[in-house]
Amino acid sequence: MEIVPYYNVSIKGGFWKKWQDVDCMTTSRALYDQFYETGRIPAMDLDWKDGMPNRPHVFWDSDVAKWIEGACYCLRVRPDKELEGLVEAVIDRIEKGQAEDGYFNSVYLTFHQKPFTDRTEHELYTAGHLIEAAVAHHEATGSRRFLDMMCRFADLIEKVFVIDASAPYSTPGHQELELALIRLYEASGEKRYLELSRHFVEERGRDKRDRVFSVPNGTWPANPPLKNQLLYNDTYAQDDRPARELEKAGGHAVRAMYFYSAMADIAKYYDDKELLEAAQRLYDDEVRHKMYVTGGISAERYGEAIGTDYVLPNALSYAETCASVAMANFAYRLFGLTHDGKYCDMIEHQMYNGALVGLSMKGDTFYYDNALECRVAVSDFFAGINAKPLYPAYQRQKVFECSCCPPNIFRFIASLGRFFYSYDDSTIWINQYAEGSAQVDGVLISQETSYPYDGRIWINFGSSTHKTVAVRIPRWCTSYSLTVDGKAVDARVEKGYAYITGGIKEGASIVLDFELPVVQLSAHPDVVDATGRVALSRGPLVYTIEGVDNPGLDLFRVSIPAGELDWKLVDKEIEGHSVKGLTFKAMYESVDGYEEVLYKPYGIKREEVEVTAIPYFAWSNRGANDMTVWMRKL
Amino acid sequence: MEIVPYYNVSIKGGFWKKWQDVDCMTTSRALYDQFYETGRIPAMDLDWKDGMPNRPHVFWDSDVAKWIEGACYCLRVRPDKELEGLVEAVIDRIEKGQAEDGYFNSVYLTFHQKPFTDRTEHELYTAGHLIEAAVAHHEATGSRRFLDMMCRFADLIEKVFVIDASAPYSTPGHQELELALIRLYEASGEKRYLELSRHFVEERGRDKRDRVFSVPNGTWPANPPLKNQLLYNDTYAQDDRPARELEKAGGHAVRAMYFYSAMADIAKYYDDKELLEAAQRLYDDEVRHKMYVTGGISAERYGEAIGTDYVLPNALSYAETCASVAMANFAYRLFGLTHDGKYCDMIEHQMYNGALVGLSMKGDTFYYDNALECRVAVSDFFAGINAKPLYPAYQRQKVFECSCCPPNIFRFIASLGRFFYSYDDSTIWINQYAEGSAQVDGVLISQETSYPYDGRIWINFGSSTHKTVAVRIPRWCTSYSLTVDGKAVDARVEKGYAYITGGIKEGASIVLDFELPVVQLSAHPDVVDATGRVALSRGPLVYTIEGVDNPGLDLFRVSIPAGELDWKLVDKEIEGHSVKGLTFKAMYESVDGYEEVLYKPYGIKREEVEVTAIPYFAWSNRGANDMTVWMRKL
Repeated sequence: MEIVPYYNVSIKGGFWKKWQDVDCMTTSRALYDQFYETGRIPAMDLDWKDGMPNRPHVFWDSDVAKWIEGACYCLRVRPDKELEGLVEAVIDRIEKGQAEDGYFNSVYLTFHQKPFTDRTEHELYTAGHLIEAAVAHHEATGSRRFLDMMCRFADLIEKVFVIDASAPYSTPGHQELELALIRLYEASGEKRYLELSRHFVEERGRDKRDRVFSVPNGTWPANPPLKNQLLYNDTYAQDDRPARELEKAGGHAVRAMYFYSAMADIAKYYDDKELLEAAQRLYDDEVRHKMYVTGGISAERYGEAIGTDYVLPNALSYAETCASVAMANFAYRLFGLTHDGKYCDMIEHQMYNGALVGLSMKGDTFYYDNALECRVAVSDFFAGINAKPLYPAYQRQKVFECSCCPPNIFRFIASLGRFFYSYDDSTIWINQYAEGSAQVDGVLISQETSYPYDGRIWINFGSSTHKTVAVRIPRWCTSYSLTVDGKAVDARVEKGYAYITGGIKEGASIVLDFELPVVQLSAHPDVVDATGRVALSRGPLVYTIEGVDNPGLDLFRVSIPAGELDWKLVDKEIEGHSVKGLTFKAMYESVDGYEEVLYKPYGIKREEVEVTAIPYFAWSNRGANDMTVWMRKL
Repeated sequence: MEIVPYYNVSIKGGFWKKWQDVDCMTTSRALYDQFYETGRIPAMDLDWKDGMPNRPHVFWDSDVAKWIEGACYCLRVRPDKELEGLVEAVIDRIEKGQAEDGYFNSVYLTFHQKPFTDRTEHELYTAGHLIEAAVAHHEATGSRRFLDMMCRFADLIEKVFVIDASAPYSTPGHQELELALIRLYEASGEKRYLELSRHFVEERGRDKRDRVFSVPNGTWPANPPLKNQLLYNDTYAQDDRPARELEKAGGHAVRAMYFYSAMADIAKYYDDKELLEAAQRLYDDEVRHKMYVTGGISAERYGEAIGTDYVLPNALSYAETCASVAMANFAYRLFGLTHDGKYCDMIEHQMYNGALVGLSMKGDTFYYDNALECRVAVSDFFAGINAKPLYPAYQRQKVFECSCCPPNIFRFIASLGRFFYSYDDSTIWINQYAEGSAQVDGVLISQETSYPYDGRIWINFGSSTHKTVAVRIPRWCTSYSLTVDGKAVDARVEKGYAYITGGIKEGASIVLDFELPVVQLSAHPDVVDATGRVALSRGPLVYTIEGVDNPGLDLFRVSIPAGELDWKLVDKEIEGHSVKGLTFKAMYESVDGYEEVLYKPYGIKREEVEVTAIPYFAWSNRGANDMTVWMRKL
């Protein structure tokens, strides 16, 4: 299955046009400015000296690289001389600093440290992001300048880790390079990069020297800093056993997702069914046992990690933006290998919820970790005693000390088109829906729709095709109609796709119409933090209630009535985005009887109130507000 | 109001007789053995040397002191030559080591450190516990040996902190001395100890030098260890303002409760209404906003602290045993000043739930922190990655590194009789109910009852009294009968007590009969962790469901049906204790439809099952089990 690249998919209106505008016009600059001001971009000059502010940090290259990558996606589809100039100037800095042997890491070079001596320092992680940026730059500009630079770096890595095997460890401390090398192979055609990626994927979990996250000397430190406790574990960096033997999704969520993605890629290029099965097993374990209803996949704040089955705290969630982006990328690889729509459902879920919530609607502030519940008074209390990391921030930040998430959501949205279409010799898959057009293996396809707020999608063919056309029927959809040129079609539905056979004529239209009721979602009963509660969704959007829309109401006293919800859509404008909110009849719990006590015999009085919900991604764009995704269900 | 001392109250049967037997026979020895083996008792000899195991710790004196105190309570009411010998031998060690000037702290003396130089080292805290132990020893044995030793220590403290004011700080880092000095005053009649206590209570929050828990140099450390973040705060040790200005219960829970207790005592002896109001305000804030349904009063694991309103996580609870013991002691002081039964309700609540859960039914193992929810698989997962402190232990321990709770629950149960009766010139208050007898200001009163499992209490008068007799009508009780000599009495009920006026004749009986239905308790809706759930209680007992009683059931799939509960009592024997469990009809949630996903459209199938609950205090006595206090309510 081939993927239609993002630059052959033009998003021309509606929901994602607005987001891509914000992303490429505002986010691109906001990130550059922050990365400049915080010293990240200047650090590429390798001239930082003691006493200067902004001491370079070992992760910074990856921040800059992801910014370049995202900016290149923007540039390819919307020429922007200013942005292009910024990108080239940053690459100039890197080019100037790159060592003779191809090595680049701004911290190691600035401080004249010996490369590849400490697996925890993540030079291979930042290398991976630089390589991804170079591939994006090549794709966007046609120039081989940055690509060639990074080929030299990759060659050096091959020499050190395979040919000479001279480093004191075998595999990256933080995965990323593995999947980057596959992209480098795809861009360059050099199979040795694919081989090198396979080497890292296969070697992982085999070399005892790599277990830097293991218990030091075989015994736990008596009192490890709590924050680091999760680090003292073989499973933290997916180091405990070879990839194909991994049974459960676990450890640092981003490392996990990046690694599983590379596993899927290697399975593809080497037709390795066992490795594919392992990747699918890990995906299923994550989705069935460890994922938030919003798509967040790292429940554990300590260690930014995937936790254990059913432990999904709402206010203490982590649900890192990066991990949601990475989950979408992982899912797309599995889709390519299985044609199973559940993976594109996941991409959609992350697009609209888990990943998107990481970016403000204005485009210039971010969430790293994403709460499913926020109480301003609680957050203020814990912030006041400097325990802020324990409870959610109700305001997005411009930049973080470790600022991986902002450029990750930036590049994700800028390249979103790549998730829309794929094809092989006999079939075209239409995976995602948005106003726009695409060249799909020579076939011109356009979509007219107000999706996701409206379920009707006109898919128009500007040229004919003999191929079967498969349109995704999302799992959340229980009722829909499908016509081709106005005639109902009884298309075979398999693994989440309706397959329309017999070819499509030029000028023909497929019309999909998904019913979009509000659905009350319940969680598996072992998800204790959702006991007796429901979350609202409509189409792919998870909804939430936020204080600003519900003045005078304590959100935690709101209950969803028994039976169907009595709801209607309401138009909202938030920071220039048109959003469909929901208003619905809810019940509001009295606190009579709790004046003297916190607990009393059951017997709750409630009155009817009208409550407004908004899409989850849209919360925290209008000041400090309480918020909750889960609501009590009567 | 005078309190009838524990040694004038004899508990002769039923629930508390069994617990006092366990406490004085098993716990007394188990603690001694552990405190000996872990070096605590040998450390009193001050001869620890580098290279030896069990390096003395600055809290150890308090562990040993609380053991002496509890042992003395046992000795006074049940002569035990062996235990007496152990106690006297430990006091010998302390006596031998006490400095000429009266000072004693095993760590400071062992390491020849200069006393009273570091407020965080808690010498005044351990001094307080030694003083309490000395008072108990004097009470139990009549000997002034230990009491005189500790009077000398108190005199030294007065000299250093008041007369010379030579220490670099003004008030104890960890409160306890304040209330101990009041006990020393009561035992010795020396008013200067009361004055000294008042000094410490009044000075607190006034001297900037004392703010050792404040932000160092006015700025937060960049990355304080998470565990210590709560320490970096003025409110942590109730240091932020003078006692009478405190508005909200907060900070380290045990320090808070000890301090508030001393505030109440000072309010009593100096007739200080403002201070009393402050103590009541803090009590009310705790009870109305921050207390678990089990009575646990420290929600925050980090810092062992009282948290903020309505944040009461169940699996991540702290709910320290010591804090529940201390809350009962605080409440009793407020009762003495107000005659308000709500305070004795609280004592009862802690007796049967929050404090008692800290001791195993066999009497030899303990909980320090107390969970309201436990999932063995979750605890195992986090223990496996060395993040054990995050999720509850499902097994009690023999001793802890900081082992304050075991001797605290030991002394609490040994001296429980002191909560039962109080009196003044015109009234006798009967506060707690248990089989036994008492001398109440010359009046012989006995109780016959199977309380708390049965609600009927015969209160028999072995001598007549002209006084009004007030019997506590617990807040949990909504229906009861009250007769005197078989005749219904229409007694005035005020602040939780029924006042029977006109005196009682010798041989007369008051019969109280409380209805004991199972009550479904709901929490204030802002307690998010109890949303849509209820806890079961019967009389003073909070119930819980534990895996061992419900084989084959996943406890988190159990729901309490709408309406009244269909329940019956079941007899259980657990480690030699006769316990009344409850069996009831519940609904059991199907997990059909969750095979592939963690969330699905609401529509839950349930089947009826029989579920067994046990009193909360009795959980975790029969191996590793899941447990939950809160259950979904339909």
